Amino acid sequence: MAPATNGRVIFAKVPKDFPVPGETTVYDTTQTIDIDGVPLSGGFLVKTLVLSVDPYFRGKMRTPEKKSYFPPFTLGEPIESHGVGVVLRTDNAEVAVGKYVYGMIPHQEYSIFPNMQRLNFIEKNPKLPWTVFVGAAGMPGQTSYYGWKELSQAKKGETAFITAGAGPVGSMVIQLAKRDGLKVIASAGSDEKVELMKQIGADVAFNYKTTNTREVLEREGPIDMQIHPKGCRYWDNVGGEILEAALDNANTYGRFIECGMISGYNTGPKGIKNLNQIIQKSVTMTGLLVFRFHDKYEKEFYEVVPAALASGGAEKGSNTGKAVVIVAED
Amino acid sequence: MAPATNGRVIFAKVPKDFPVPGETTVYDTTQTIDIDGVPLSGGFLVKTLVLSVDPYFRGKMRTPEKKSYFPPFTLGEPIESHGVGVVLRTDNAEVAVGKYVYGMIPHQEYSIFPNMQRLNFIEKNPKLPWTVFVGAAGMPGQTSYYGWKELSQAKKGETAFITAGAGPVGSMVIQLAKRDGLKVIASAGSDEKVELMKQIGADVAFNYKTTNTREVLEREGPIDMQIHPKGCRYWDNVGGEILEAALDNANTYGRFIECGMISGYNTGPKGIKNLNQIIQKSVTMTGLLVFRFHDKYEKEFYEVVPAALASGGAEKGSNTGKAVVIVAED
Repeated sequence: MAPATNGRVIFAKVPKDFPVPGETTVYDTTQTIDIDGVPLSGGFLVKTLVLSVDPYFRGKMRTPEKKSYFPPFTLGEPIESHGVGVVLRTDNAEVAVGKYVYGMIPHQEYSIFPNMQRLNFIEKNPKLPWTVFVGAAGMPGQTSYYGWKELSQAKKGETAFITAGAGPVGSMVIQLAKRDGLKVIASAGSDEKVELMKQIGADVAFNYKTTNTREVLEREGPIDMQIHPKGCRYWDNVGGEILEAALDNANTYGRFIECGMISGYNTGPKGIKNLNQIIQKSVTMTGLLVFRFHDKYEKEFYEVVPAALASGGAEKGSNTGKAVVIVAED
Repeated sequence: MAPATNGRVIFAKVPKDFPVPGETTVYDTTQTIDIDGVPLSGGFLVKTLVLSVDPYFRGKMRTPEKKSYFPPFTLGEPIESHGVGVVLRTDNAEVAVGKYVYGMIPHQEYSIFPNMQRLNFIEKNPKLPWTVFVGAAGMPGQTSYYGWKELSQAKKGETAFITAGAGPVGSMVIQLAKRDGLKVIASAGSDEKVELMKQIGADVAFNYKTTNTREVLEREGPIDMQIHPKGCRYWDNVGGEILEAALDNANTYGRFIECGMISGYNTGPKGIKNLNQIIQKSVTMTGLLVFRFHDKYEKEFYEVVPAALASGGAEKGSNTGKAVVIVAED
């Protein structure tokens, strides 16, 4: 068989501010791969099925000198992110052809992996498309689930304020909060998203671009818990103002969970000026990074969440706002 | 006996920014009291011995309309704070003459209390002056002790960064940290205080007015724990810059304890811009107010701390920087 094109998304240039597709990343079709003959050297060949596209990409589009808790993308090489693939050929007896794998996958149609170090096997669920496994049943869903289990200390009757509530993290948190009997206040940036947040159970849902967050929280609070999936965005004025409003309307012993991935820089003109509220209200603010809790909750997550999603109990909207690339049909 | 003068410190005027003694507070000697004859109406008469003077006073020097977790001082009435007094006369069989009481006491030489609601009995320790009972063995010491017990999660070999380390809260924390085997980095605002912090055990002590905090933390960190007794002072630029430097030099899973009392307002031009570090480093930032933990630790505190102070094991400097008023000799 003639070599196949191996389409790739290359990290071509560090962005000045916003990434520019075609310039900072380039779709490249010059590489080919001999699917049947390429040497595997003890590894295995994976066909990419779906890839996640996440806000944290911006933080990885940097020069290697800039320090961060995660490594940068490599200039001239494909970007990579969470994705799902299927094993086409193998030199490794423990990785059978036809197995599905989830983990960090380069943004290219075919990849050779030397081992399973950055991958896990996952089981196909006939009721769920693979896209769900990079959303509600993938890293964003894990962020919600781990954070809820580890940090929320949720009690029935409390009030939670969830920003970015129509995104893959926030929508899952709304559902976890409603399941546990909390009142949910949720915000997002469009009326469609507001509608969605209501459908999945938010008691109070509003568009922060057209409604004053502070007024909503003053009316519907105080809030016992805040989950800010775009915690990263404090350099963005809106994020800062929302956190300030949330702190001003925190209940005593409020838990503030700052999650989401982070821009590699913070350039905004304004900081958070009312951290004294943390003292006044005995608030605990904790940073949540999903990978800190994999060891503790990953097994439970895969036992519980895909089945719950497949049963229809929680899937509504859980993948909305999640950008994915469907690379190939399974 | 002729009525005695009952000297009082009156809250006379809300300060514009800094309090002005003689204007915002006035020492008044116009009131007299008949010590032997004043009716007690079921209560008891207390002679004030020592009174604490604390940074949180500023937050109470406000108009009642301004909301806060603590009530304001009353205009035209004496200010009040933690203090120690001795019972001179009594109508209450459970409050014997000669007993010592600790609690919220008006800034006047003699006060009549209707009951013990805002007071506790304390035992005299022949080796400790009463001033210690509004310092290391009083509210500031409790702040340190409760915070250390409840929030520090201190582990031997970790590094703690303690600001205001020569003050009554910070100096106690330095000693608790050293007792538990931590490396202590401590800052304060004068060379005398630096010397003191070294004497009580700080491994690295520096004057933040003449030494760059960020450079010290980059060299001596990362820091596993930060205790900021002047957490209140984020409206003060220095405080903000110090917290930002501490966040940038936090270790993974760092615990940031923001304590101290709080100004009723925050007027500073700058906020905290690097809260993304809370996420990057999985930091937990918690507000500490001493009164939240009285029920849990007060008994233990009085069993442990005055004796430890009297034994000389921990008293050095524990009261430095603590402003007190000695109202009368015992």
